[in-house]
Amino acid sequence: MDAFFHPNSIAVVGASNRNIGNFMVANLLVGFKGGIFPVNRSYQEIEGLPCFPSLEDIPDPIDLAIVLVPASSVPSVLEACAAKGVRRVIIESAGFAETGEDGVALQDRCVAIAKQNDMRIWGPNCMGLVDIHRSHFFTFMHPGVREEGLLPGRISLIVQSGMMSAIFLVELGRRGIGIAKACSIGNRADVDECDVLEYLLQDPDTEVIALYLESILRGRLLAQMAQRSTKPIVILKGGSSEAGALAAKSHTHSLSGNSRLMNSVLEISGVTLADSIYQMMDLANALAMIPHVDPACRTAIISLSGGAGVLACDALERHGLPVASLSEQTKKAIGEVFPDWMPVSNPIDLFPAVSSRGREIIFKRVIPAVLEDPNVGVLLIHFVAGLDEKILELRALKEKADQFGKVVFFWLMGLQEGCEQFRREARALGIPVHEDVSRIAECLRTASRFSGHQLSLGTVDTIAAPSSASVPKTPPFPSSEKIWDEFDSKRFLSHWKIPVVEEKMVQRPDEAWKTARQMGLPVVLKGLAPGETHKTERGLVQLRIMNKPLLEAAFQHIQEKLDRRGRILIQKEVQSDYELMAGFIRDDQFGPCVMFGLGGIFSELEPDVVFAMAPLDRDSALKLIHRIRNKRLLQGFRGMTPLREDIMTDILVNLGNVGVACPQIEQIDINPLAVSKGVPLAVDANVILKAS
Amino acid sequence: MDAFFHPNSIAVVGASNRNIGNFMVANLLVGFKGGIFPVNRSYQEIEGLPCFPSLEDIPDPIDLAIVLVPASSVPSVLEACAAKGVRRVIIESAGFAETGEDGVALQDRCVAIAKQNDMRIWGPNCMGLVDIHRSHFFTFMHPGVREEGLLPGRISLIVQSGMMSAIFLVELGRRGIGIAKACSIGNRADVDECDVLEYLLQDPDTEVIALYLESILRGRLLAQMAQRSTKPIVILKGGSSEAGALAAKSHTHSLSGNSRLMNSVLEISGVTLADSIYQMMDLANALAMIPHVDPACRTAIISLSGGAGVLACDALERHGLPVASLSEQTKKAIGEVFPDWMPVSNPIDLFPAVSSRGREIIFKRVIPAVLEDPNVGVLLIHFVAGLDEKILELRALKEKADQFGKVVFFWLMGLQEGCEQFRREARALGIPVHEDVSRIAECLRTASRFSGHQLSLGTVDTIAAPSSASVPKTPPFPSSEKIWDEFDSKRFLSHWKIPVVEEKMVQRPDEAWKTARQMGLPVVLKGLAPGETHKTERGLVQLRIMNKPLLEAAFQHIQEKLDRRGRILIQKEVQSDYELMAGFIRDDQFGPCVMFGLGGIFSELEPDVVFAMAPLDRDSALKLIHRIRNKRLLQGFRGMTPLREDIMTDILVNLGNVGVACPQIEQIDINPLAVSKGVPLAVDANVILKAS
Repeated sequence: MDAFFHPNSIAVVGASNRNIGNFMVANLLVGFKGGIFPVNRSYQEIEGLPCFPSLEDIPDPIDLAIVLVPASSVPSVLEACAAKGVRRVIIESAGFAETGEDGVALQDRCVAIAKQNDMRIWGPNCMGLVDIHRSHFFTFMHPGVREEGLLPGRISLIVQSGMMSAIFLVELGRRGIGIAKACSIGNRADVDECDVLEYLLQDPDTEVIALYLESILRGRLLAQMAQRSTKPIVILKGGSSEAGALAAKSHTHSLSGNSRLMNSVLEISGVTLADSIYQMMDLANALAMIPHVDPACRTAIISLSGGAGVLACDALERHGLPVASLSEQTKKAIGEVFPDWMPVSNPIDLFPAVSSRGREIIFKRVIPAVLEDPNVGVLLIHFVAGLDEKILELRALKEKADQFGKVVFFWLMGLQEGCEQFRREARALGIPVHEDVSRIAECLRTASRFSGHQLSLGTVDTIAAPSSASVPKTPPFPSSEKIWDEFDSKRFLSHWKIPVVEEKMVQRPDEAWKTARQMGLPVVLKGLAPGETHKTERGLVQLRIMNKPLLEAAFQHIQEKLDRRGRILIQKEVQSDYELMAGFIRDDQFGPCVMFGLGGIFSELEPDVVFAMAPLDRDSALKLIHRIRNKRLLQGFRGMTPLREDIMTDILVNLGNVGVACPQIEQIDINPLAVSKGVPLAVDANVILKAS
Repeated sequence: MDAFFHPNSIAVVGASNRNIGNFMVANLLVGFKGGIFPVNRSYQEIEGLPCFPSLEDIPDPIDLAIVLVPASSVPSVLEACAAKGVRRVIIESAGFAETGEDGVALQDRCVAIAKQNDMRIWGPNCMGLVDIHRSHFFTFMHPGVREEGLLPGRISLIVQSGMMSAIFLVELGRRGIGIAKACSIGNRADVDECDVLEYLLQDPDTEVIALYLESILRGRLLAQMAQRSTKPIVILKGGSSEAGALAAKSHTHSLSGNSRLMNSVLEISGVTLADSIYQMMDLANALAMIPHVDPACRTAIISLSGGAGVLACDALERHGLPVASLSEQTKKAIGEVFPDWMPVSNPIDLFPAVSSRGREIIFKRVIPAVLEDPNVGVLLIHFVAGLDEKILELRALKEKADQFGKVVFFWLMGLQEGCEQFRREARALGIPVHEDVSRIAECLRTASRFSGHQLSLGTVDTIAAPSSASVPKTPPFPSSEKIWDEFDSKRFLSHWKIPVVEEKMVQRPDEAWKTARQMGLPVVLKGLAPGETHKTERGLVQLRIMNKPLLEAAFQHIQEKLDRRGRILIQKEVQSDYELMAGFIRDDQFGPCVMFGLGGIFSELEPDVVFAMAPLDRDSALKLIHRIRNKRLLQGFRGMTPLREDIMTDILVNLGNVGVACPQIEQIDINPLAVSKGVPLAVDANVILKAS
């Protein structure tokens, strides 16, 4: 990949004296120190450089060709590149896979030519790449974008959509957020987000990587890279809505995956998911500015208005962030500048104190006391700029905060000019400033989650191979059907040490009654028909059978419904406190994955399910269990016995191992996984094999 | 109230030559045309006006006194006001109820003096009021705030916290949002938000009212005013979090209500709830700019980047807003400027068309076609400013949109100067512009909800009195306990035509068995102990009794648990498809209210409950039912019979009527309200009386 970023010479095929062909050459001239060779039969000279009629006419060797010619001419350009020995090509022209079938064919031809010639292609349908530190603009982007002023910084971008990459640059510049590299990857015929991500993870200029993607091409690899990364990764995924996904489909000819699985797997891998352009920028910036924050991040709030303190508390609590309890020493120190009638508590409302003693106390007395407080990890200061700037002592504040390892955020309001001046000063010192306190809460939550993820990295290898000792020998498959019935499925799962309900196949009512008495009443009778996954709706399940006449009636009813097609199962009825679900799915993007979540009506109304890539070790399985929204249900809710996490962990580890060991298995559903007195038990299950 | 806003003469008690005493006089001089009379023994003259040693020395009559003296002197100032015949006083001094017990007593003394003298007090601990259209600044606010530039407009503010009112003015000014009046009401010793709201609802300058409140003093009145209001009302409530509520308590000595009840009642009354300062401003501004939007608000999206179209779709869908299907005619018209390979669909990605035909087509061809499309109610345009402004035809766009009754939003990005110019032009034309597409979705949802609320106003009087025909004569109370047991509660509720489960009190096991056989098995046996509301946890409930031995064992078990204190109830066991809850609560703020929601484990994990003020008519009850988050559970979910909304509506109407008719009742809980085959039935219930 390095050859794309640091070529010694560049040929611009399709350079011209106007529009994008000209923008490209002008952009290269800004900072690229190597040879620039415009190629176009129609010109002698472009921007003062000699223009060549064709690649072969260039006397020098060419490291990188940038192609702007119409799509139909691109294959012949690639042939010429091959002949010339060019090994890296950025195709910025559009008109390929995004345009339909013919475009797909054209793009495939380009890839084939590249493969034959050991050439890597970047694009097509993209805006190339930008390296702000080196002023490399390998892009036809409108010069207005770079003239607006782009700041060198530590955030690098990977952007699938062409126009969006220009938008990101403009908007980051406007917000004073610095950039390292911006990579517009377009249709990803060859180079994709994983290739670029791998490069940026090694890039010394890059500390945070932000991606805008409408689909993910190698999800499993991406998640694995994120898991191991010490650099924060932020992803804004377009097309999460149904309408958006349709748009994404027609826009870049790409499929959007199951976003619930994707989001879950990425988050558990340490990726930060953003849901808007500006949030993405702000989160990336926060991660760049705050290398570490205590995951507990107890926040002290200092405000110039009681109302602002209240709203800051509200915002923190909405984002699940705790408010610090001030130490007695801090209370004492602040109490000295407070009016007598006013107790000191967090949020610290400075309005009365400032009214009587002036704003100097903020920086001289209150902030230092709070920064020294061992109960405080983060300080959020509400400040109104433009009234009295001589009190500002931002540098001293930042030094003290660093000394005590504290993170400081400013929630800034005030008069226009005062705010701008404050922002400039804060930016130079690396202090984050926001005008929306909800965004501060989002940034804080993101930074603390990433710090938590980094801490766990040290201890656990989250993609551990299953230890061979714990994996039983794969038993023979009990069925040749594509969808196994619940009896076969559970027999198979119990081989893998997944606890299943007591049950037995029965042929006759008297045999069923005998079994029922052995099991203990009540029992459940189920008719299993081949391929049937809607037993309840089909009337094939009879619950709460308490006596022989009921059993006989149920047996006859099911037998009739089955119409000689299936078989009858008797099961001990489980009186569960609540129902969970667990499963395995082989995802197109993320490969084998384990699912865990709440069952029952929850699972359909407001799904509370999480996914992680298999195989799972026990630590990762436990983490997965703790990631559901309603985890307090499992922790002794309403006087119920807490979930036996040891058993649940084993079930999830084993489910992952089954799926990894048996590539023929497409999907496993355990639903419900009934929990009584804390013990989970598979009551119904289905194993589904891949279509052959 | 008008005398506060339009006095002929104002005395400033505590005027001075420096700080707030001076700011006040300077602010009055900006635009107040009446007499201004500074009062202070220490000065001869302030800002060129003669200063009076006391109120009685002023020769002219005084309509309004503004008081800035220290809190302890305020009662004597009020006495002087009374003597002088001043009937309106704004106390801007702090140091009253917000400071603790002594301050409460001081504030009470002020209120007593006012009452005796037929005087109205505004404040204390406030920043007074501002009328931008008349340049009235009856406030000690820093002159920097008004010098920054405040625009006259149609939004009026009511702000409880003093400092916040200055902040709102500054920030609205910075965003170019116009203001009519801003009212900082402080401790609300006398004049409160309802007084001011009533005035603003009649004020011809005010079209939208935005409130920042940390508590609500007369919730029921506020909700009733909102219900009848044709002007949109936006409320930002500080103190919704636990930590925030504590802060609100210590800050303004006020209690925060149950925010779930409050939010629910306010929303059903047509109030828009905001959750941050800027969101509040943007929502109020959107409501001021968009008098009406079709509640269906099908949106067409035009973007200069496919990626932006995708993100816009995502944002709309996240906010529950539908994306329009373009008409064939529109597709045809746009198809003429699209490349051949590109189908026309919504979102409309203009990047390829603009690349080949230039940006002129946006305003000349595409926008007009979409505005004429009968399938489109709202047009969201993603625009990048600063590249080529000569194509802008915003005036023609706005005229055409108005002609076709369409709403247009711009999602604006681009170069700094181009954006600012675009904003200015759009603002002058009344076109909303945002840089965050999520905010556009929030504004659109808010405007469409308010339009929907206005439409429903025409047809239904949502606070109808119960018709006497439908209200049964109140039966005698079955119990003298504060908490009735479930048998007494349900007997009482069944008088009010609320369907309850079949049940009977039993004395002996043989009697119980006889009853069970009459009811049909299985049955439930419950021990009812006085005041006991945790029967299940106490082991007083035995479910699924299927035969005589089980019944006898259960009877004996419960008898032992009861230990001669209570009585035993037998109940037919209801096999419910799901469980709901319904109830009545007499709220401190909102008075008698009805509750409806999901029961079971949902109700504790992720509550899905809504409230409305009682009494309810049937239309309002039906609306309430439709307001729960998971309403699809009631609509034939998973093949279940849809809820009998007629029965459920009656239950809610009757619950409201019970509560209104019996002021002794504090609370009624029906939980669960079991639903089988669509029919709801009260299985357990409690009536709780007020503490006498």
